[in-house]
Amino acid sequence: MSQHFKQIEHLGIAVANLLEAEERYTAMLGHPPYKREAVEREGVMTSFFQVGPNKIELLEATRPDSPISAFIEKRGEGLHHVAYLVKDIRVEMERLKSEGFKLLSDEPKPGADGMLVAFVHPKTAGGVLVELCQPNH
Amino acid sequence: MSQHFKQIEHLGIAVANLLEAEERYTAMLGHPPYKREAVEREGVMTSFFQVGPNKIELLEATRPDSPISAFIEKRGEGLHHVAYLVKDIRVEMERLKSEGFKLLSDEPKPGADGMLVAFVHPKTAGGVLVELCQPNH
Repeated sequence: MSQHFKQIEHLGIAVANLLEAEERYTAMLGHPPYKREAVEREGVMTSFFQVGPNKIELLEATRPDSPISAFIEKRGEGLHHVAYLVKDIRVEMERLKSEGFKLLSDEPKPGADGMLVAFVHPKTAGGVLVELCQPNH
Repeated sequence: MSQHFKQIEHLGIAVANLLEAEERYTAMLGHPPYKREAVEREGVMTSFFQVGPNKIELLEATRPDSPISAFIEKRGEGLHHVAYLVKDIRVEMERLKSEGFKLLSDEPKPGADGMLVAFVHPKTAGGVLVELCQPNH
């Protein structure tokens, strides 16, 4: 059984104003976010909504050099990345490298919501920023 | 219990070349697509991959006036829309309208993979094209 990616863990959405976006998503989904969390290293404040087995992560830039600032300047608000849940992030990183995908780091890093994360370069993934997530116990 | 959206049903990804994208996703996910399906009305050929409870839908334009042609011309390949599974699409359409969201049609339409679908205008959803899906029995 070759289920390398177990499911979409979350979908990351770049927003200009987190408060307004939280109101919009609370209205759309019918329930409020379950947490807010800053990720200093990435210069973002995040807000998470549960949608069945999946999550929506809203991301607002907290500094001008945040990747989210650059994204919104270039493309406007919208879909930013897709994160997949994996069992062993290091095994998946090695597998993807051997398949020709380029990773943005050699080692996984602590991400939001208790996860170890790693990113695949969008240039090797058809313009999609792909994140791998493994619960960081 | 207010679970209006049950889960992410699929994530739609605009691609320039479906064959190349299928190869890339087969390598990334470790398994091939489970179906290909044309959606004449939208001018697209689609390819579906299962990822646990979720799906990835690759979309290639089949004519110059396809929304996917316009999207790729403007933004390049990448994340195109997010589709949520709902129990009763007409109830959710009415609920979203009453919350101030603008829908792209008054009635749901037959979409790919056996679904009734409706779209929320990205301008009222923070730059995200949101699709509602209900299995079309």
